[in-house]
Amino acid sequence: MEVGIGEEDARQQQRTTERVENMNSKAPCFGLSELKSWSFWRAGIVEFVATFLYLYISLLTIMSVKKSTSYGDLLCSPECLQAIAWASGATISALVYCFTAISGGHFNPVVTFGFFLVRKISITRALYYMIMQCLGAICGTAVVKAFQKTRFELLHGGANLVSHESEVIGLFFEFFGTFVLLYAVFSASDAKRTAIDSHVPVLAALPVGFAVFLVHMAATPYSQTGINPARSLATAIIHGKKKGWEEQWIFWLGPLFGTLLAALYYQIVLRPKPFKSRA
Amino acid sequence: MEVGIGEEDARQQQRTTERVENMNSKAPCFGLSELKSWSFWRAGIVEFVATFLYLYISLLTIMSVKKSTSYGDLLCSPECLQAIAWASGATISALVYCFTAISGGHFNPVVTFGFFLVRKISITRALYYMIMQCLGAICGTAVVKAFQKTRFELLHGGANLVSHESEVIGLFFEFFGTFVLLYAVFSASDAKRTAIDSHVPVLAALPVGFAVFLVHMAATPYSQTGINPARSLATAIIHGKKKGWEEQWIFWLGPLFGTLLAALYYQIVLRPKPFKSRA
Amino acid sequence: MEVGIGEEDARQQQRTTERVENMNSKAPCFGLSELKSWSFWRAGIVEFVATFLYLYISLLTIMSVKKSTSYGDLLCSPECLQAIAWASGATISALVYCFTAISGGHFNPVVTFGFFLVRKISITRALYYMIMQCLGAICGTAVVKAFQKTRFELLHGGANLVSHESEVIGLFFEFFGTFVLLYAVFSASDAKRTAIDSHVPVLAALPVGFAVFLVHMAATPYSQTGINPARSLATAIIHGKKKGWEEQWIFWLGPLFGTLLAALYYQIVLRPKPFKSRA
Amino acid sequence: MEVGIGEEDARQQQRTTERVENMNSKAPCFGLSELKSWSFWRAGIVEFVATFLYLYISLLTIMSVKKSTSYGDLLCSPECLQAIAWASGATISALVYCFTAISGGHFNPVVTFGFFLVRKISITRALYYMIMQCLGAICGTAVVKAFQKTRFELLHGGANLVSHESEVIGLFFEFFGTFVLLYAVFSASDAKRTAIDSHVPVLAALPVGFAVFLVHMAATPYSQTGINPARSLATAIIHGKKKGWEEQWIFWLGPLFGTLLAALYYQIVLRPKPFKSRA
Repeated sequence: MEVGIGEEDARQQQRTTERVENMNSKAPCFGLSELKSWSFWRAGIVEFVATFLYLYISLLTIMSVKKSTSYGDLLCSPECLQAIAWASGATISALVYCFTAISGGHFNPVVTFGFFLVRKISITRALYYMIMQCLGAICGTAVVKAFQKTRFELLHGGANLVSHESEVIGLFFEFFGTFVLLYAVFSASDAKRTAIDSHVPVLAALPVGFAVFLVHMAATPYSQTGINPARSLATAIIHGKKKGWEEQWIFWLGPLFGTLLAALYYQIVLRPKPFKSRA
Repeated sequence: MEVGIGEEDARQQQRTTERVENMNSKAPCFGLSELKSWSFWRAGIVEFVATFLYLYISLLTIMSVKKSTSYGDLLCSPECLQAIAWASGATISALVYCFTAISGGHFNPVVTFGFFLVRKISITRALYYMIMQCLGAICGTAVVKAFQKTRFELLHGGANLVSHESEVIGLFFEFFGTFVLLYAVFSASDAKRTAIDSHVPVLAALPVGFAVFLVHMAATPYSQTGINPARSLATAIIHGKKKGWEEQWIFWLGPLFGTLLAALYYQIVLRPKPFKSRA
Repeated sequence: MEVGIGEEDARQQQRTTERVENMNSKAPCFGLSELKSWSFWRAGIVEFVATFLYLYISLLTIMSVKKSTSYGDLLCSPECLQAIAWASGATISALVYCFTAISGGHFNPVVTFGFFLVRKISITRALYYMIMQCLGAICGTAVVKAFQKTRFELLHGGANLVSHESEVIGLFFEFFGTFVLLYAVFSASDAKRTAIDSHVPVLAALPVGFAVFLVHMAATPYSQTGINPARSLATAIIHGKKKGWEEQWIFWLGPLFGTLLAALYYQIVLRPKPFKSRA
Repeated sequence: MEVGIGEEDARQQQRTTERVENMNSKAPCFGLSELKSWSFWRAGIVEFVATFLYLYISLLTIMSVKKSTSYGDLLCSPECLQAIAWASGATISALVYCFTAISGGHFNPVVTFGFFLVRKISITRALYYMIMQCLGAICGTAVVKAFQKTRFELLHGGANLVSHESEVIGLFFEFFGTFVLLYAVFSASDAKRTAIDSHVPVLAALPVGFAVFLVHMAATPYSQTGINPARSLATAIIHGKKKGWEEQWIFWLGPLFGTLLAALYYQIVLRPKPFKSRA
């Protein structure tokens, strides 16, 4: 409070400039020096709160719209599917808009892993983000259970399950859905790099939100759409049923391989290597 | 009319620049000097008209989509829920786009209160806005009742009620829904500060609209989604039933605490304090 | 074809700059000199094609979504209402994006009338636009009738009618719906004036599209949502039933008064007159 | 990996600048020299992946939302129609955002043909893109069939068919739907030309996505909405039924004529020829 807002602004703008410059260079591998900066810890708090909100809103929406239809079934009517997909997509879009400038706007362990793979963040930051995301998701799910216990049980806590299909199909949908998401995220952050002005992160919020919407439209009937291991872990822990744990590996392995493929694609195809240097 | 539009433009641009500069400094506590400026009174008129339009459109939409389903029940089908949520979100988004440059785009007493808490506006302006917002909401609701009396009564005037649930749950949903809204508003206006160009308020309209959409998706089945005391007051007054008044405190206390938490979060976490000054 | 595209571009950019400058000054009252410029005639062609497309898409959507529900009734289910509202809003949004730089993006006689009232366009241009809009709307409706004759008759040609309600209520909804639309249009074009860069018209497309969406959500069950006399005239002519003609005045008078109120509001409240000059 | 990202960035920015300059001049007719550049081959890979994703998501959405309603019928409920239209529109919007800077963002043989007609790309690039788009669409459809064989057969593989209507009507809807799409694409890329800054392609993603959404809303009940011969070919090949092949010509001829009309309109009306040079 002692520092005037005017001065704060100048500092923030300077730091934004620095961050943009940092985005253009490789992040250090460990980056232990980051531990000393407040912006590092703040980024983790922001990741915690954002993942908390994502679970809070998306699970409550599932309970709002599935309430009057079938229970305990991944199949839902077109309007129910749309409601879940729009709520998830719009939440991610708004959160990316609000927090990209502070933490990078991940809210998802595989997005964090993807940014680590392409050397945008250090392993220290990656691990810190992942822990905060999982904690945020667990707290968000717990709050929903606390206030809507009956419906939470009826709807299996919105847990990610592979229903009606074999595990292979669920695994494929998770794999490919995560690929689509990471694809959009990498493209958006790539465009960010080339732009010099500050409002591009804002514009990136829309296509990333659309990607989340689309994956939900395509994959919800087959795997309740995980593509976010923090979400899958949190619903499994808070719901606490055996089935959720037995299928948990699908929602970690699928997204993991999707991220690997997207990172590969990004490094080999999207990275603008001149033709000569490839010969 | 005597003043050429070209000159007007230059003046407006100058004033916009001044306003941006003002946003970076703390507002005076009382700001009685504002009372002399036309832009102060104009801002209040704009808040009145915008809150009027918000109530007019959102209540008419409730009456359009709930007409053919159940009456007097907060529970509604997924498509009905989506219609209400999209109408509310899109209204706020369009209004924020149109009026941010003139009044700041509040249309909600707790948003005004939030901006007062973080010292962006004076107490004089805050009180003036709140009165105009409540008057606008009352007039908007009255117009809807005048033209659709039968449906207005059947649907309890779209009043905010805590149905099917205990008051604690309704209070929590109002508290947390307002936190989500204020969170988006503070983040959007924070981004605004760092940007120097004039079209950033335009971009802020989308995430704030999304936040309103999301809170409606999550909370409508439990409290008809207030998160705006002007709306709750207006529907209670115009509908004039006892139940609306008995539960009115929920729709003031919940949003109030949500605003307090969001303002705290904004001041402590989002405010870019350097690490040293916190030690 | 003989002129290189590079040169064309330079000329276009110059003309865009001139147009922006022209927007900041009052248009001449008659502007007969405009008749000599190709850009004047081109703007009318663009208005014709855009209004043609608006009627083509919005009427076909009504026939797509109402087909499987009730016929000849303005009341429709929430999902049907949303489909019509989104199609209309998204069409206007896309058309405004595509054509604002060429004709100003009116596609509606009352929007043209509104811009004439605030002295942005000459009376010559206003009349030319209105004729082209009505012709475009008539052709668009005729094409839909030609290819979907049976459904066109069943659904009363999507004509604007005041069903289930008295004429006064229909008139009010048309009046106020047009006020909301013009309000958004004036605000968007006002923001356009202060911005110096070329992509602001693009951003204006979203709030104007939202306004069209919102008015449809609120008013479709009461008047099938006209707020565009060209649409009301075209459906009345092509459908050719007596009822459409008897209620035609509602869809001209309502929008007309809505436009007058919005223009008044714009001139008195939104126009940034300094406080002194008002004393 | 040997090249630092910082250097890469500088090169990319330079290449972006060159590409913008190239967009303002006519493309060479054959452009065989392009074959030597990595960016040419990369653009084709990107077209392949994007068309793959478009088919993957849009077909899976059709199977998600049509599953619980009628099978083998183009008619679907308003909510089902909206789900398909939103999924298609949002996919195209996100893909245009992600890939415009790399390949121009076509994902559709007739869009590529349209850009060839207005001399934006060479015939070599056009043919290469079209082959990659068809291959991408075929692979995307094959993956959906592999993982959802039963539903794929039940829903006729989402193939484009003219149901309930004569072939003439289907042909007209395909013709006009493609005109609307190309119209939006040309307008968006026209705006791109006049703008000097890099983020305009981002903004173009929204109106183009809206155009796809709108055409689906209007035409899905009559022709399952092709407007993309790569999509029509892929579903016909992978589904492999006689009916799909018999009507295949409709989904090539309609879009072709739509593209021709849009290119004519673009060259004659939208091209800002000064009045004098037309005399």
